[in-house]
Amino acid sequence: MTLRHPERAQISVEGVLSALGNPTRLAAVRILDGGGEHNCASVLKMLGIAAKSTMTHHWRVLRDSGVIWQRPSGREYMLTLRREDLDARYPGLLDAILAGARADSAS
Amino acid sequence: MTLRHPERAQISVEGVLSALGNPTRLAAVRILDGGGEHNCASVLKMLGIAAKSTMTHHWRVLRDSGVIWQRPSGREYMLTLRREDLDARYPGLLDAILAGARADSAS
Repeated sequence: MTLRHPERAQISVEGVLSALGNPTRLAAVRILDGGGEHNCASVLKMLGIAAKSTMTHHWRVLRDSGVIWQRPSGREYMLTLRREDLDARYPGLLDAILAGARADSAS
Repeated sequence: MTLRHPERAQISVEGVLSALGNPTRLAAVRILDGGGEHNCASVLKMLGIAAKSTMTHHWRVLRDSGVIWQRPSGREYMLTLRREDLDARYPGLLDAILAGARADSAS
């Protein structure tokens, strides 16, 4: 089953901010910012989250807002940050957010 | 009565994103970005919102997240965008968000 994703033009800045205005989702996106595809299980592990169900809602929020691609692969999902789309639509936004998250973590 | 505001160091990027990930609050901040103090009534008028009560919650979210100063003045409140604090803590973030909001409005 292919999951629905908004096209680049359908992304809204409110949607992106709302999706990233949550510590768990922001932490997940920081992991995905490393580049490439990640499977859900490995991101959960890095986040220290044991309950897979906790993240199902978060992945959907990130996907629906256009922040990530979520692709079924066998019994699990592969995740990719939509950096190209986000950078094209909102230049500097993702970098400013990620820099802010790093600054908060460091303080 | 003086309202409670977070100090600059208490502001978090999640809090700011969550506060601005809402169309009404984002529109209000775009108005405040013009600079200076605005009274609540004039912002409501510019937003086309008749019910003052609708905004009470929104002002609190913006204040609690460190996005605005809200100062009592007689029977109403004066609002100011905390641009200096936000720019100091998260360089480029507010500008990227406001540019994104303008781009969304234009499309």
